Amino acid sequence: MRVPGEQVDGRRRVVIENVRPQIDCGRFSIQRVVGETVVVEADVFADGHDQVACQLLYWRVNDKEVLSLPMAPVGNDRWRGEFPVLQVGRYKYRVEGWIDRIATWRGDLIKRIDAGQDVHVELLIGAQIIEEVAVRATNEDAELFRRAVRRLRDKEGPESKQDAALDLELLKAVQRYPERHLVTRYEKDLGVVVDREKARFSAWYEVFPRSCAAEPGKHGTLLDCAAHLRYIASMGFDVVYLPPIHPIGQNFRKGKNNSISAKPDDAGSPWAIGSAEGGHTSIHPQLGTLEEFKEFIRKANGYGLEVALDLAFQCAPDHPYVKQHREWFRTRPDGTIQYAENPPKLYQDIVPFDFESADWHALWMELKEVVLFWVNQGVRIFRVDNPHTKPFSFWEWLIQEVKEKDPDVLFLAEAFTRPRVMYRLAKIGFSQSYTYFTWRNNKQELTDYFNELTQTEVREYFRPNLWPNTPDILPEFLQSGGRPAFVTRFILAATLGASYGIYGAAFELCENTPFQAGSEEYLNSEKYELKHRDLDSPWSLKDLIARTNRIRKENPALQSNRNLRFHGTDNSSLICYSKATPDLTNVIIVIVNLDPRQPQASWIDLDLNSLGVDAARAFEVHDLLSDGRYQWRGARNYVELLPESRPAHILRVRREIGAENRF
Amino acid sequence: MRVPGEQVDGRRRVVIENVRPQIDCGRFSIQRVVGETVVVEADVFADGHDQVACQLLYWRVNDKEVLSLPMAPVGNDRWRGEFPVLQVGRYKYRVEGWIDRIATWRGDLIKRIDAGQDVHVELLIGAQIIEEVAVRATNEDAELFRRAVRRLRDKEGPESKQDAALDLELLKAVQRYPERHLVTRYEKDLGVVVDREKARFSAWYEVFPRSCAAEPGKHGTLLDCAAHLRYIASMGFDVVYLPPIHPIGQNFRKGKNNSISAKPDDAGSPWAIGSAEGGHTSIHPQLGTLEEFKEFIRKANGYGLEVALDLAFQCAPDHPYVKQHREWFRTRPDGTIQYAENPPKLYQDIVPFDFESADWHALWMELKEVVLFWVNQGVRIFRVDNPHTKPFSFWEWLIQEVKEKDPDVLFLAEAFTRPRVMYRLAKIGFSQSYTYFTWRNNKQELTDYFNELTQTEVREYFRPNLWPNTPDILPEFLQSGGRPAFVTRFILAATLGASYGIYGAAFELCENTPFQAGSEEYLNSEKYELKHRDLDSPWSLKDLIARTNRIRKENPALQSNRNLRFHGTDNSSLICYSKATPDLTNVIIVIVNLDPRQPQASWIDLDLNSLGVDAARAFEVHDLLSDGRYQWRGARNYVELLPESRPAHILRVRREIGAENRF
Repeated sequence: MRVPGEQVDGRRRVVIENVRPQIDCGRFSIQRVVGETVVVEADVFADGHDQVACQLLYWRVNDKEVLSLPMAPVGNDRWRGEFPVLQVGRYKYRVEGWIDRIATWRGDLIKRIDAGQDVHVELLIGAQIIEEVAVRATNEDAELFRRAVRRLRDKEGPESKQDAALDLELLKAVQRYPERHLVTRYEKDLGVVVDREKARFSAWYEVFPRSCAAEPGKHGTLLDCAAHLRYIASMGFDVVYLPPIHPIGQNFRKGKNNSISAKPDDAGSPWAIGSAEGGHTSIHPQLGTLEEFKEFIRKANGYGLEVALDLAFQCAPDHPYVKQHREWFRTRPDGTIQYAENPPKLYQDIVPFDFESADWHALWMELKEVVLFWVNQGVRIFRVDNPHTKPFSFWEWLIQEVKEKDPDVLFLAEAFTRPRVMYRLAKIGFSQSYTYFTWRNNKQELTDYFNELTQTEVREYFRPNLWPNTPDILPEFLQSGGRPAFVTRFILAATLGASYGIYGAAFELCENTPFQAGSEEYLNSEKYELKHRDLDSPWSLKDLIARTNRIRKENPALQSNRNLRFHGTDNSSLICYSKATPDLTNVIIVIVNLDPRQPQASWIDLDLNSLGVDAARAFEVHDLLSDGRYQWRGARNYVELLPESRPAHILRVRREIGAENRF
Repeated sequence: MRVPGEQVDGRRRVVIENVRPQIDCGRFSIQRVVGETVVVEADVFADGHDQVACQLLYWRVNDKEVLSLPMAPVGNDRWRGEFPVLQVGRYKYRVEGWIDRIATWRGDLIKRIDAGQDVHVELLIGAQIIEEVAVRATNEDAELFRRAVRRLRDKEGPESKQDAALDLELLKAVQRYPERHLVTRYEKDLGVVVDREKARFSAWYEVFPRSCAAEPGKHGTLLDCAAHLRYIASMGFDVVYLPPIHPIGQNFRKGKNNSISAKPDDAGSPWAIGSAEGGHTSIHPQLGTLEEFKEFIRKANGYGLEVALDLAFQCAPDHPYVKQHREWFRTRPDGTIQYAENPPKLYQDIVPFDFESADWHALWMELKEVVLFWVNQGVRIFRVDNPHTKPFSFWEWLIQEVKEKDPDVLFLAEAFTRPRVMYRLAKIGFSQSYTYFTWRNNKQELTDYFNELTQTEVREYFRPNLWPNTPDILPEFLQSGGRPAFVTRFILAATLGASYGIYGAAFELCENTPFQAGSEEYLNSEKYELKHRDLDSPWSLKDLIARTNRIRKENPALQSNRNLRFHGTDNSSLICYSKATPDLTNVIIVIVNLDPRQPQASWIDLDLNSLGVDAARAFEVHDLLSDGRYQWRGARNYVELLPESRPAHILRVRREIGAENRF
């Protein structure tokens, strides 16, 4: 409320509303990666008929330089501007608007001249406006302005004066000097967190190092795992994600298949972190040493792979913290420590931190030190286990603190939980998030969910990472659909999502035996025992995976999500969607048979406009999976897909047949 | 961002998002009238599995008492509560949430008991929780809590303890004492402006007192106009709105049909305010005295009519302000004063205030005094002329200042301008607004526009007042459609809008001659000359108007807008919509023939659910216009409307045929 007498100027007439993007009234930043742009829109208007001007200001937080650019009207009092984000870190943007006195005067002058009115007083008014501006102009501009004023007040003929008045250079020069005290600034500066490109485009491979031993039954090491890196890289992945590599608790250790009592040689769950051998900054002795871990990172990097570590903020009962910081855990009235539970389920091998501890402050600081420890070893990506069971304010603080030290660090939220909670975690700073993709199988479900993720405000802060399976989740579709189901889910993950991941080698070998009917747990889950696998099995999907990852790398359209568009099919077992670069030089159409059992055929209905295709001319689609080529024409074209031999098309659109070299 | 060491408690785990209603991030208040409720929703959730509780607090601004009530979950982490607004004035509301420790404990306990687990430690934990609460409880509750704690720690048998633990009274009592320092409050308290009922439900009649003389050619007075009040009241109106009643400028006075030079006996435009005879707080001598004006108000009130004055903040060149406060106007370089223009159009009889004057502060204060002057004479409603040509911040301040003195005052914004501007004026405090209804004629236009006004967030702050004509606007539809067009537009205005108005007697007498082809101005417009009319013309719509206004008063469904629902018709010349009270005891279906020339028939497709009608049973609809009765069954029913004899149905639904007395 503006009240005379207060520090507000009642003459500030421009109002600014509805600035977008804006998350929760500016409470949260939007997310971008380096090289992307931020398109900002706002309603900017004033009372009366005066013209308004507005500009977009933006700056990198902690940088001194504030850049600005004019916004342009897009109709109905809405204005638009866009700026690029060229560096990793935090940016801010702001919208400002004011009455454009000179443009108003000039526009009215033209109307008066066209109506044949006497404008000699109007020219004097213009001289007044320009004279006022000259006072605050640079010497050079001031000289230009004074010249214009002289001409407008001169005895010269009216036509010469009008020429002077309508000079476009003069207009532009005067427009550079709005009256600052009458400029309206939108209530809030809004934020952008800019990550490196991997935040948007990444292919993850989850591997348990302890299962990488060359001979069966032996506990694998980090160096054994390093020997697998060539294989992982050959499939085209760029992130290798390791479950926790820390010492595993002895007390209440789980046995195979999650049994309550472990046998002496049971390896235990890597997520039951901590024992007499150390905690969250130690490495499981059977995996190796810190030096070997650093060697592993170096080797991975040599293959173009980054290493992602698991961040599971919970302890085994024999974790050193439990003795050293009893106050960080909840003690029960019988003196025992509270283990994890979700009544009536009990997880005796895990004790959670008590984030309501009176000593929460020290706990936060310690956990930050854990992250920074691994950052110091060269880790730049963390997959955060169950973030939704720790306070939001903790994560918001932690992520900002870590990025303050190193803005290249990325965090993937493993929050398989309710939608509001997942989105909140993304808003407070997680770089990527697991999704419901894991359970979205039919055409309608996939269409609805991916439209929500890519075509609504959600896309401003939530970056999906699509996983068809995880060590915790073997979805029913994979259990029942066999190898063709794995193919379907893989193609969907790798093309619907700019980022995706698989839990290997269980995935590429199509392991699909559940613990029991109705369960999503694996039988003989790798979470509780060592595995030894034949990676050269003829069943393996490794060639399909390698080919698909190459297609992803060669086609920038597949490296974004905002550009996703669904197209119609007459058969609900076939799903069709496209991705295209903004300039339409790279356009990919994907069609997937969602039925792992039967061949399915359908006419598809393409939105040709979004593909940059001329409805009147034939065009070629080149299947990057099979190398087949098809001549299509118009919106409706026929497709037939077979579960075994041709489960999907990944089609590159070639608009000019016979002129392929252009592409 | 929460940082350890700052004044924020990291243990505050609940988050609150997306509180609705909320206009522009809480920058503006929503609007309500006395007796309405405010339904508040919010996303409230926490990390982990704990149960959360949340409450809605509300209070009248300046009252001490803060009331609160619990919010209830409606699914997907969304919570809802509602509160009534029982007094005129400003209210605030707030959402708070916290972890409900006792309910979490109790819920888990039940699961444990059901799973047959040993719960003796859990009972001790409950005792701990309750013991902590006892410290901050009233004596009475503390005694209850201590008793419960003793039982939970007693040597009694487990079943007796469990009974104590699960006692519902205990649960409710403990829930009254959340840990205040762990309560999350939504970032903003949100506002409500509560008006009296007339802000929502009103029927306006615009009359020029100077046209009310008993004999032709004579300048009518306020007392002449008072003699018309019985006629106006007999048609069922409740607001009589007078164009400006102030002295009219002599300089540059406009003649008949807006001609540049007035003849000596030309009356001038009432909107060219001010002359040597006085300004905005004076009364035109030919209309009467201030005493007579007050007498006019008293008489109007006697007929159940309120008087609305015009607030036109602009001056004739000979307005006293122009001499006394030259600084409030813009002086041109040639020493003349700037008159109103919208280049190339010129309005020489009007000089606008310069709201960019260095003396803006004094100008604001003076204009406030003008409003308060008329408030002191008993005026409680103002129709504000062209508010969109004065700064938004001025109106926001003015309206709040006036309502501070008298919250019963209402302001109608006459802003026929761009949508963002109209909505902004509503947000900053105008009680009602003119609309685009005046130009929305076909079924699609009407449906789209009224869905926007009544079914989106717009309804929280924008109250439409529908005018089929004004002295400035004779729409083409009325010009070409003759009397049936007036009937159509009247029925639409009076039933689509809880508030509507007509410019009489031009409207009820169906005056429809434009100044020239393509113009929306009246020929021989009443703005520039006196009128004398035969109110008893057989053409008059007065009986239809009287009947319709009676229907509006007798049927509460027609007194709101939120309840508007459109129903399908097979013929785009027929529009069908309904309004119903929330309890469905009063349900009105309106069907209007939009074609003033031809009979039109159609099947209509009713959404029976919104009407509270059982699809399987016949129901009666009673036409309140014609008194006809029809037996209908199911969703599809047939209707035929004739421009002259049966242009519309206003049907009251009678669900139980033969049991009418119940309604």
